[in-house]
Amino acid sequence: MKFELTILGSNSALPTSKRFPTAQVLNVLERFFLIDCGEGTQIQLKKFRVPMSRINHIFISHLHGDHFFGLIGLISTFSLQGRMSDLHIYAHSKLEKIIRFQLEILESRLSYELVFHNIFGKEVQNLFDDETLTVQSFPLKHGVMPCAGFLFKEKERPRHLKKDMLDFYRIPIRARHGIKLGDDYLTEEGELIPNAKLTLAASPPRSYAFCTDTAYFPRIVPLIEKVDLLYHEATFLKDDEKRAKSTYHSTAEQAANIAQEAGVGKLIIGHFSARFHDLSAHLYEAEQVFSNTALAEDGCVFEIPLKSNK
Amino acid sequence: MKFELTILGSNSALPTSKRFPTAQVLNVLERFFLIDCGEGTQIQLKKFRVPMSRINHIFISHLHGDHFFGLIGLISTFSLQGRMSDLHIYAHSKLEKIIRFQLEILESRLSYELVFHNIFGKEVQNLFDDETLTVQSFPLKHGVMPCAGFLFKEKERPRHLKKDMLDFYRIPIRARHGIKLGDDYLTEEGELIPNAKLTLAASPPRSYAFCTDTAYFPRIVPLIEKVDLLYHEATFLKDDEKRAKSTYHSTAEQAANIAQEAGVGKLIIGHFSARFHDLSAHLYEAEQVFSNTALAEDGCVFEIPLKSNK
Repeated sequence: MKFELTILGSNSALPTSKRFPTAQVLNVLERFFLIDCGEGTQIQLKKFRVPMSRINHIFISHLHGDHFFGLIGLISTFSLQGRMSDLHIYAHSKLEKIIRFQLEILESRLSYELVFHNIFGKEVQNLFDDETLTVQSFPLKHGVMPCAGFLFKEKERPRHLKKDMLDFYRIPIRARHGIKLGDDYLTEEGELIPNAKLTLAASPPRSYAFCTDTAYFPRIVPLIEKVDLLYHEATFLKDDEKRAKSTYHSTAEQAANIAQEAGVGKLIIGHFSARFHDLSAHLYEAEQVFSNTALAEDGCVFEIPLKSNK
Repeated sequence: MKFELTILGSNSALPTSKRFPTAQVLNVLERFFLIDCGEGTQIQLKKFRVPMSRINHIFISHLHGDHFFGLIGLISTFSLQGRMSDLHIYAHSKLEKIIRFQLEILESRLSYELVFHNIFGKEVQNLFDDETLTVQSFPLKHGVMPCAGFLFKEKERPRHLKKDMLDFYRIPIRARHGIKLGDDYLTEEGELIPNAKLTLAASPPRSYAFCTDTAYFPRIVPLIEKVDLLYHEATFLKDDEKRAKSTYHSTAEQAANIAQEAGVGKLIIGHFSARFHDLSAHLYEAEQVFSNTALAEDGCVFEIPLKSNK
């Protein structure tokens, strides 16, 4: 029952030899959702042993190169590997033009279908929804460049049946689905058995929010309230707050303020400017505001374990 | 007086976590010529401390992604760094379309000029020529994909003047340029001083040939004859000779045959299939035919020292 984030790249526009540009992968129950795809993402996926064939959905926050220049290489590699299943890409519509233009001019025929989904970028948008997970995008503040944050939320799980109680009340199979969803049970004798007697609560759903690139933008707080894990960019330190504002980026302190205001479980800061070799000042600055902070470094894994039943 | 090759990437189409796709840089007297630009090239340039601002010429062999997907990232990074000087790119004309389309759709304005030079691909073509170096392209055999090899040749250096002999014969400044180029000298008294008495030979020019991707193609032998250093692809081993032929690649033995027939100084083999973790079989196979062979591994440096005067 994994819900686990792996950082593939954690740097801002100019990569360093140790920090690749932005990319990360969220493992939700062994399905791998790729978030951003900077140059070298396919190399990092191999290095950190992510099963590439389990990636079916790729979310691209915005069209600065450090967030998508690795996509064409990954698309090509999937085809060289003989991939058959559709690959869904959620991004600004210009990305589809860029990718299809290259494939056409090079007369590349892929072994599978590319399915693009346009992120309109002005409002909260439902991108993905199945029986276990929803993914929404929401606008960030990155100057003239439309930029989306992403919210991954597990759905409520059905309640766990107490087998011994079902046997005791001789509850037929056909009634069990409703009981899992919270129904009480009326016996043939007319006795009402409350659901709480028949079930245990499932562990609550887990959630992850990805917020980069963005200036300090408190409007996102209600959208990401109480997520278990928040990734928020922290390109700069407080000393550079003016520069952060003018380039539509955040400081480590601002990232921590967002985490604090939203009451999240844990904060990961990343998208560091290439000029910082040592990131301890970023961590210190954020921890002064929000203590449960970690640095996004390439290869780091952040697991959200199943929470205990209520 | 450096003439030195650094391997930035040595793998074929599918990169591994240890071998990046094809890219290398040739340092000729502290000017850096980039040859191919697979995904992640800019990361490798940083890792191996190549002074990026000294790259003014990029040569792209062909338009399979593993040879150029790193170019758009490098172009963007140069602009973020505020580069001013022109960047010359030598490639099939489709590459210019791909790059310019991306820049236009993303409304990117570069801080410098991109100058594209079309490689026509059917014959030997002079790409670059200045006072110290020439670069030519020549066709390789890579199926329907036009693919160019590159030949880098230093020009003959002027001969070294023997200062004491010039003083002895009281040779005026104005005559010295011709003597450096090999002229004899006629004294005012009518005595002919042979050039060999007045000069020493300069060290002979050095040369490098880059041949990937290609099937075994002996037609290139006269073009690369006696180069000091030859890089030749060796995607496969002899066991896979049929597969090499059908995919227009070479085996390690075939690469060594080319080196042997052309009488080169040293052979480097590269562009290894991702399925080979251990490359000792490639090296062994090539060495049976041509003993002075080395493996191209990411970060390897091959220097061609100045040769002794004749």
